[in-house]
Parts: sequence; structure tokens; C-alpha cells
Amino acid sequence: MKFKVGIVGSTGYTGVVLVKLLSYHPNIEISFLSSEQYDGKNYSDIYPAFYGILNQKCKKTEAKEIAKTCDLVFLATPHGFSKDFIPKLLTYNKNLKIIDLSADIRLEKEIKVKNNKFKVAYGLPEIHREEIKDSQIIANPGCYPTSIILGLAPLLKSKIIDSNSIIADSKSGLSGAGKQPKQELIFTEVNESFTAYSLAGAHRHIPEIENEISKFTKRKDKNKIVFSPHLLPINRGILSTIYSKPLRKISQDKLHKLYCDYYKKEPFIKILPGSMYPQTKNVRYTNFCHITPLIDTRTNCFIVVSSIDNMVKGASGQAIQNMNIILSLKENLGLDRVGEIP
Amino acid sequence: MKFKVGIVGSTGYTGVVLVKLLSYHPNIEISFLSSEQYDGKNYSDIYPAFYGILNQKCKKTEAKEIAKTCDLVFLATPHGFSKDFIPKLLTYNKNLKIIDLSADIRLEKEIKVKNNKFKVAYGLPEIHREEIKDSQIIANPGCYPTSIILGLAPLLKSKIIDSNSIIADSKSGLSGAGKQPKQELIFTEVNESFTAYSLAGAHRHIPEIENEISKFTKRKDKNKIVFSPHLLPINRGILSTIYSKPLRKISQDKLHKLYCDYYKKEPFIKILPGSMYPQTKNVRYTNFCHITPLIDTRTNCFIVVSSIDNMVKGASGQAIQNMNIILSLKENLGLDRVGEIP
Amino acid sequence: MKFKVGIVGSTGYTGVVLVKLLSYHPNIEISFLSSEQYDGKNYSDIYPAFYGILNQKCKKTEAKEIAKTCDLVFLATPHGFSKDFIPKLLTYNKNLKIIDLSADIRLEKEIKVKNNKFKVAYGLPEIHREEIKDSQIIANPGCYPTSIILGLAPLLKSKIIDSNSIIADSKSGLSGAGKQPKQELIFTEVNESFTAYSLAGAHRHIPEIENEISKFTKRKDKNKIVFSPHLLPINRGILSTIYSKPLRKISQDKLHKLYCDYYKKEPFIKILPGSMYPQTKNVRYTNFCHITPLIDTRTNCFIVVSSIDNMVKGASGQAIQNMNIILSLKENLGLDRVGEIP
Amino acid sequence: MKFKVGIVGSTGYTGVVLVKLLSYHPNIEISFLSSEQYDGKNYSDIYPAFYGILNQKCKKTEAKEIAKTCDLVFLATPHGFSKDFIPKLLTYNKNLKIIDLSADIRLEKEIKVKNNKFKVAYGLPEIHREEIKDSQIIANPGCYPTSIILGLAPLLKSKIIDSNSIIADSKSGLSGAGKQPKQELIFTEVNESFTAYSLAGAHRHIPEIENEISKFTKRKDKNKIVFSPHLLPINRGILSTIYSKPLRKISQDKLHKLYCDYYKKEPFIKILPGSMYPQTKNVRYTNFCHITPLIDTRTNCFIVVSSIDNMVKGASGQAIQNMNIILSLKENLGLDRVGEIP
Repeated sequence: MKFKVGIVGSTGYTGVVLVKLLSYHPNIEISFLSSEQYDGKNYSDIYPAFYGILNQKCKKTEAKEIAKTCDLVFLATPHGFSKDFIPKLLTYNKNLKIIDLSADIRLEKEIKVKNNKFKVAYGLPEIHREEIKDSQIIANPGCYPTSIILGLAPLLKSKIIDSNSIIADSKSGLSGAGKQPKQELIFTEVNESFTAYSLAGAHRHIPEIENEISKFTKRKDKNKIVFSPHLLPINRGILSTIYSKPLRKISQDKLHKLYCDYYKKEPFIKILPGSMYPQTKNVRYTNFCHITPLIDTRTNCFIVVSSIDNMVKGASGQAIQNMNIILSLKENLGLDRVGEIP
Repeated sequence: MKFKVGIVGSTGYTGVVLVKLLSYHPNIEISFLSSEQYDGKNYSDIYPAFYGILNQKCKKTEAKEIAKTCDLVFLATPHGFSKDFIPKLLTYNKNLKIIDLSADIRLEKEIKVKNNKFKVAYGLPEIHREEIKDSQIIANPGCYPTSIILGLAPLLKSKIIDSNSIIADSKSGLSGAGKQPKQELIFTEVNESFTAYSLAGAHRHIPEIENEISKFTKRKDKNKIVFSPHLLPINRGILSTIYSKPLRKISQDKLHKLYCDYYKKEPFIKILPGSMYPQTKNVRYTNFCHITPLIDTRTNCFIVVSSIDNMVKGASGQAIQNMNIILSLKENLGLDRVGEIP
Repeated sequence: MKFKVGIVGSTGYTGVVLVKLLSYHPNIEISFLSSEQYDGKNYSDIYPAFYGILNQKCKKTEAKEIAKTCDLVFLATPHGFSKDFIPKLLTYNKNLKIIDLSADIRLEKEIKVKNNKFKVAYGLPEIHREEIKDSQIIANPGCYPTSIILGLAPLLKSKIIDSNSIIADSKSGLSGAGKQPKQELIFTEVNESFTAYSLAGAHRHIPEIENEISKFTKRKDKNKIVFSPHLLPINRGILSTIYSKPLRKISQDKLHKLYCDYYKKEPFIKILPGSMYPQTKNVRYTNFCHITPLIDTRTNCFIVVSSIDNMVKGASGQAIQNMNIILSLKENLGLDRVGEIP
Repeated sequence: MKFKVGIVGSTGYTGVVLVKLLSYHPNIEISFLSSEQYDGKNYSDIYPAFYGILNQKCKKTEAKEIAKTCDLVFLATPHGFSKDFIPKLLTYNKNLKIIDLSADIRLEKEIKVKNNKFKVAYGLPEIHREEIKDSQIIANPGCYPTSIILGLAPLLKSKIIDSNSIIADSKSGLSGAGKQPKQELIFTEVNESFTAYSLAGAHRHIPEIENEISKFTKRKDKNKIVFSPHLLPINRGILSTIYSKPLRKISQDKLHKLYCDYYKKEPFIKILPGSMYPQTKNVRYTNFCHITPLIDTRTNCFIVVSSIDNMVKGASGQAIQNMNIILSLKENLGLDRVGEIP
């Protein structure tokens, strides 16, 4: 049996990764590719990698048509769009499942449409699988938050971390900045350089990260984190180096075991031994997250390194993982491949 | 039913691409990963992208064990190795199918072992599919020859090309140079630079290319080509710009049709319209070959641009395509995916 | 003594390279930085590499002010601008020296303003030094033409080349595409890819190249060339691989000597031995041109490889070389440095 | 007047940057290029960027010859070499000035040779200019320590920082790893990836950094830092993001002024406003250090970002700055240029 799936915003980068991954999913039929910019154009004219393979035209985003013809819709749209669009979709089809890849509803618990309430789950399956199963609408996490929360969850859960001491130094590839032409994104400006940006509390992902931390600690006001994003001159990948203070002593072995135990049933989380460090190339194009947890005994500091592909586990792959969950499919369907080496 | 497959030289770059692609092939079981350098090591210690996924150890290359336990063997070994190794394998198992990715036997028609003769086919399926079906041993083509012969075949077949006027200006990513550490291959030497190498007849792929051209023209001495390889600071991809003189006039439309007709049944060859040019990123990580044929009417010159991934259609992907053929499997099994964008 | 120099279009890429190189020129004072886009802004806000070093504001482009205050003006403006702007400048100051980096006047021999005629020289000093000395206005050559003409001049001059057989396969870094944001120029679209563009006679540099060839051959209609530009995922550098047919036999040694003799007094042209090939990194950030001339005896074909930095010898460095000539300064002033390794 | 300078280890990356920068220094004559590996070879055969420009042969490293013929020697040698070699040089010439770019003597205060004592200064001029002036032997700082100490000095000096709270998350280009071929350094392994290494106290630069911090705090045991190095897929540049806790409140304005005041006479340190962040490209190929100091008021945390070129201010440029000081030359001679944009 195949579910009918629509992709709104199918020609952006998260859109094309969805299209690629879903093309091979055994239980999915892409019934709708929407694009404001490329209405009426063949998808393979926009992305020639699909030339002679995907012969589907992009259409304008029509809430009614999408809602009536799809079982599930992905919103891979710019921030600010889905807040208004989701209620429209639900008006036309109150059973429609929606996975929103934007930041619009990541702090919400439900959406009201007229007299109906629709539960919203924060779509980080390793932490919130049960809520996801139980929800119709999924707020797909941001790429930075995914790398940071997955890196911290075992420490937060076991309560051995000072939740007010967290410093996340994150480095992201350029695909996270999207496909719209801006001068600071052109090749000659980015290539062979490295920079920090939005430091000292300025990045919009901070409330999302702190909100998730507070779900572990129940102490919202006490979970202020330092978050420093940086731009890497590569297409894909995030690596977060996360520092925090232990509340009590723990050995490297016990720390490693803590992480292995916490994630032991997770198909996409790989805890590396202390002698191996995550490298973005090893998770590139995959839904995997590689994590190395370390305790620096000289300074009594946790150092956790986590790495994901910002477009896959950090966006479209995780969205498909969420889709698999809410459609009661095997969670790793369409997501079971290792990356491309070299 | 699953065929048992061994990979000799499994830790080089063509080896790891074979391992990756075969891991998901529905009819293949990898029964043997050999590596001289990493005997006894876990494959995922060498390539951490496989951490927690492929738990298989590398073994020494033992002809007897391999020959006795495998249905088919890939030789992803340095040039010079397989010439002696193939007869050994065949001594132990005269039904063993062998696909040699090195250059050792690309000019051979058969291999004699004691009193037995084994047919060797040049494994370019789009040109030699029938011979391949009929052979036990496949000489898998070089990456440059694949891009050039596929780009020229329709012209050669239709006899409208002066076969003595061919100039192939090819540009390759660095993975073609392999994984062995050499000073000229380190990042800081290669990055942000571009160079030609082995010009003016010096590259070892020239006899292979001229040999293939002569199969079309039957005029071996008249098919001298100019071949200029260059190194691109990218991991994957070859783009060949191929110049030649027409023997008679042909319009752009007719030329385009000639190519479309020639390759119309081929799943992996995509003929682009004259307004679109191949880009290495559009075939990266795939077995596809993108070709744009052009006639420059100002100068009366054919310009054919063809692009492949040197590690896939130029090596391991084509080897699997050949495997599918000689095992009577569907030709695109395990090879049906588009690349990774962005 | 210092000459006052203005730079119109000082914030584009050719502009910033002019600013950088002129900043250290012992006989130059930059009296005017014009920019339509950044009027009133500090130059170091646009290019922070100059932070705390160059404290000069950009101004609007006012022909009168520039003409009255400068001895010489560089026009580093988009194509189409200078054709009208040069006469304006000359109206205000008929002694003003002008070096135009755009393509607007590269096929012109003179510019008329009212009753005055101003001689225009094509600013390739190695070929036209005497005309340049004698001219007030310099049309600074294109980057591709510079690499190709310098590569061919010794063959053309000695008349051993079939001028109708020339094929130039050129590869350029991205800085040649400028700084304006376009989707096809953003990092994620360009990085890790390679492509051809404007093939089969479509590139606007062709008339310029053919015009220069005809100055050697005096046979304008017979000098049609094939020119194939490609885009390299690097910031700086052009490498042209140029093919042509000899009219008579010549040995590799004689060919090499022909080139060494032709360029023996040139400070910026380096003829490499046949065993060394130009690499873009070796001329990067410099005004040098590296050339390796080869005769492929198997195919009786000249293969000349030439490499320059497209922004220096291909644009702003050559403009300064021309400036030095028309200001009667030592030709390599401000241009005497080797590149940056690694 | 020209000083005679020898470079031991002239063909490594720090060596070639010394050669390049010294080639244009008005008061320096390079009298000796040593290389074990390339004895007798022309320097331009090893680095073709110098083809036709630097016609000097590499010689074996002979302590006596070097000591007798040079006024000053740079040791750009692998770690472990200079410890024994410096006494040899001083035996032959007790007035020889020596600048050691390796890590061998960075924790030393003097070197004894027979009955003579030679003062060693840690060559960070912005902190130790007076000691440098007074010393014959300079231990040139490491690249990471330079970026970190320059970033922290104003905080340490003003005693508003908890010296036991420092976390330095540093990212370096590949040239810091040198030129020797190793598998993990080849292009295809490094390109399009990012990784951490030597975490949790494992990097050899830590004692050097802590030693420098203790010179400010006088509390050696209390200055344990967390230092996390990472590898960027670029040739040149270090960017360090440094976190620490304030001992008392300070506004962003006062913090910025503190830095501006501390470095107000320094030609190579540029304090950027809080709205501008250092980017490696803006200091690339230069001796400049860009620093942005920030106070994150949400979390009460200092965040200082500093960026240098690891090969220039982080190695060879700083060595020349030290040379200028001990030869009583103007400190920025040969080091006065901005970088290359784009």
C-alpha cells in the first residue's frame, strides 16, 4: 500500500532532499510537488540530477487541492509560512498529517482550528517517540538543536550535568543557509574561509534548544545556554562540540556506557569510542548521528562531540523518520543507507 | 537467492564504493572482504561511516579460499596484481566469475589457464552487452575511457566522424588517484588548484581508448587520439570535452536525435538538450552518464561533453552493472538512485 | 612623485584587486574610490580585510570630479558602462589616461570625442607594448583571451601553426563571474562540481581572441577558433589547454626554444620545461603567466598549456602593468611578488 | 645594509612562507636555504611558484657553515630537532641570533652552552616585546597559542576573568599539519569534511598556553584550560572561539574599549566592533589578528573570537616580526600587506 504525500516548497534544499529520499521509499507516492517560483516547470529542469528519471511538474501551492489529495504533507517552506498555512490545510482535511520543517510551531503543543484541537509533537524521535506516535502534526526540529539535544540527552536524563553550564560550539555546512542568492553566500565569499555568526544569544534556535533542555530539567529559567554557530565551507554537515560541567564525578568508561545504554535501541545513533571522533563526512547524506562523549579529567568538564548531516538527520531525513512513525511504518524505511565515501 | 561475492582490495576507494553499493543489493551477500594492509581489522575501523552497520573483518587475500567460497569476485586491486591472480583463482574454481577493475586485462580477449580458455569481455555494457553476457571474466573499463567512448560511440557508429581528429580534454576528481599517501595528493597541495598531467600521449589509458575506437572503425593505425587529463580539486566526477571533425554536415537537431536514438534503451545514459550542459554534481554518486552533443557550425567541429562519476560509472558502479549482466539479474539493481543534491 | 589614480567600480572583484595592488605601489596615490552601491561607506566595511588599514570612503561616480582630480582612471565596471562614460571623462579632461577593464572597447582603435581622436591600444604588453606606450586609452584584455593569446603568440608569429585549427579548452575559477548574487553562483551550487558553459561559439570573448589572432595572420576570415570555457570550483586561476595543427614539423626542443626566445625579455612570462605543467596555484595572486608548449608527435598536434590568475594577469594586474607603461614607470612596479604557497 | 639570514628546513610550509616573505624584505639577504630532503635541488623545482624568480639551491644543514655565514637563523624544522641543534650553532658562533619555529624551547627561559647562558624569549611581541628585544634566541609561539593568548590577554591583564574557566574551541586550516604525506591528509579524506582531534587535554599546545596564562595570573596550578582543536578543509587560517567567566560585570562597550586600549599601539591587532566577526579570509596571508570580544549577558559569559593566518601570524610572519625586533628594524617591515580578496 502506498501513502500519497505532498511536498510544499519542493524546490528548496530541504525539498529536494525529501524528493530524493521519498523517490525510493517503498510505501510512498509523491502526489504533489509545489513550488511558487517554478510553477509549471519540470522538476528535472530545476534539478538536472533527475533528468530522465523524475518527470513531474511543479504546481502552485493550493491548500485545498493538497489537503484533498494527500495523506500527509511536508512543509519545506521559509519560516513564517506554515503558521497560517497549517490551519488552512486542516480546514480542508481534518485528518491530514502534517510535518512542518520550518521553525514556526516548534514551541507549540497544539494548534486550534475552529473548535478542533490538533496535537503538535516536537519531532525528535529518540526523545519524544511516544508523543510523535500520538500526534497528527509534527514540528520537525532544527538542525543545530538536533545535534545538540542528541548530544546532551543522556547527561540531562541522568541528572549529572549542571544545566546552566552548557556551551554549544556548532559548525554547519552551507546548505543550511538555503538556496536563495545572497552576496555573502556566493562561492568566492565562502570558499576557503570560516566564520562565526549570530553569537551571544542572537540565534533563533536558542529558545528551541532551551525549551527541550527544560523538558528534562523542569527548570526553565535555569537552562540558559551559550550557543555559537559557525559556517563551514562545505555543503553538508554539522559538528557540535558541547561543553558542560558535571555535578558529580564520572569515569570515561561509565560515561561511555551511559550513552550506549541510553541509545541502545536507536537505529540512527552511533556512540563512538573515546578514541574516535565524529567527522562530518562519516554521516554525510545519512540519517545517522555520531556522538563521542568525553570527560576531561584535567578540567572536570564534559566534552561531547556530535555530528549529523544538517539536511538529513537535521531536516528531511528526520522528517521522513517522523513520517514513518506516524504512518506506522518501519522507522528506518528509506533511511537505511550509509554515506558516500570518498 | 543470494550470490556470494568477494571483494579483493576492499579498503581502497573502488573497494569501499563496491562495499557500499553491494550492501543494499537485494541479491548479493558479501562473503569476503580482503585487504593486505588491514588483515584482521574491522571494516568500520577503516571506514567509520560503517560504524555499527557493517561488522565484518578484512582478511588476507587467499586465492583458494576466495575461489572456493564465492560465486563472483571483484578485483579492486592496484594495476599489475590481477594478471597473475586471475589464473590462480581459475585454477581453484573454473566456474568463478571475475570482474577486474584494474587495467591489467583490458586489451585481452581471453585468458588461458592450462588447457582452458576463458573469454574476457571489455565491460562497457552500452557497447558490448552481448559479449559481456557471454563471458566469465570482465575487464572493467577505465574511468576516462568510459566517459570518452560513451561520448563518441554514436558518432563512430554512424561513421560521420574523422576518427583521426579526436581530441579528448578530460578533467577528473581526485578519488581517481587513489588513497595511498603521496605528497602531491595532500589537501594543501591540491585544494584551490588545477593542473594538467600526462599530456602528449603519456597517459596509460590511451591504448584502451584507441583500441575501443578501432572496434568501430576497423582501422587501428588511423585512430590516434589526443588525450589530455587534468585534475579537479573535487572528490568525485569526470567531465570530458571531446572535439572531432565531421566527415559530412549534420544539424544540431539531427545530431541530438542520433544520440537519443543510439542510447534510447539505455537506463544509465541521459542525452541532454543542447541548452543544458553536463555538470559533475548531477551524476555524482550515480551510475548515470550525462552527454550533450553539439555541432559548432562556425568551425565545423563536433563538441561532445560527457560526465560520469569516476568511482561509479567509471569504476565500481559499472562493475556492478556488469555483475548484474553476467548473473542474469536486472541490470540496474542496486544502481537505481539519483545523486545527492546539494 | 605620486600619480593620482581613481578607481571606478572599486567594490567589485577587479576593483578590490586594483585597490590592494595599488595600495603598495610606490608611485600611486588612490585619490578616488567610486561605487554606486556603497556611496558614503567606508571601504573597510565592504572589505573587512582592510579594517584599520584603508580608511577611505566610497563616493558616487561623478565624471567631472574624477576627470578633474585624477591623472589616470581605471574603469572596473560592468560591461556596457564605459562606452558612454569614457567620452564624458575626456570631455572634462582631454589628457586623462584611462584603462578600461571591461569588454566595451576591446575591438576599437580610437575613440572620437567632438573633434578629438584618442588612440585606443589593446593592453596586452607582451604583444603590443609599443602601441600601448603611444596610447592614452587602454582596453585591458579579457582573462580568457590573455591566457590564450599568450599561449599562441610564438606559434602565430613564427607561422608554423594552422590558424584555422585552434581549439582552446579553458577552465576558470569563479571570481571571473563577479560578485553579484546569482543562484548558480552560490557556494552549494558550485562547490564540488565542474561544468562547461557557453560552448560552440557562444562566449563573448571569441571575437576578441579571433581579432588578436588576425593581427598576426592578417587573415581575419580564416581564424575561427573553437573556444570552450569551463567553471572550476576555485576562487582564482585560469588554465587553458590549447590544441592546434602544425604547418611543418618541429621538435620538442625547438618548440621550447621558440617560446623561450619569443618571451626572453618578458618579466611576467615563464616558459616551463616539457616535464613541468602549469598549475593555477603557482601563478595565483601574481601577474605571472606559466606556459608549457608541447608537440604531441603521435598525433602531430601542438598542445600548449598556459595558466594565469584571472584577476591579476587576467584583469587588474595587467591593468597596472599597462598603467606602469603609460606612466613611464618600471613595468613590474607593484607586481613583483610570487604567489602564496600553500 | 642587509642582514644575512639562513633558513633551516626551508622546504616545509613554514619554510616556504619565510622564503616568500623574506624575498621582499628590504634589509634581508637569504644566504642559506637548507633542506635534508632536497639537498642540491633548485628551490624552484620544489616550489614552481618561484620558477624563473628564485634561483637558489638547497643545501644540507651544516651547523658550522650556517653559524659562520649568517647573522640570524630561522629553524623551521620538525619538533625535536632544534633542542640539540641550537647549542651546536651557538658553539660555532656565540653571537648568532636564532628564531626557532618549533615547539622545542617554548617553555625555556635560557639555553646553556658550556659556560655561556643565552636568554630565550617567548616570541609573542604584543605581550613580551621588551624581553624579545633583550634576547638572542626566540621561541616562536605555536599557532593555536597565538590566537588564544592574543584573544585573552586584555581580560587576563585586567583581572576580570576567572582564569580557571577558559574553554578554547579552535579551528585550523590544514597547512598546520605540514607537508609530509599521510593518509589522513590526502585531499579526498579531508575535503568536504570537518573533525575534532586531540580533545580532552591531549594536544601538545596546552602546556604552552597555560604557561602563558600563568605569566598573567601568577597562579600556575589554577589555570587549567579546555582546548579543543578542529580541522577545517581550507589551506590557511585559524579561528578560535574562546569562552570564559567574568569575575565582575562589564558592559559590551567597556569590554570593547578595554580591548582597543590594550592593543592601541599594536600594528597587527585589529579589534572589530561587536557587530563584525572575524573571518579567516580577512586575515589570510597576513600577519594581522582580528579579534571580536563579546559579553553574552544572558549567560554571563565572555565570548572572544580571534582569527589569524596560522602560517603567518601563527608561524613565519610572527617569526619575521620577532626578527625585525631583535635586528632593531621597523617591526612591520615585510609584513605590511593586506590579504588576497577574493
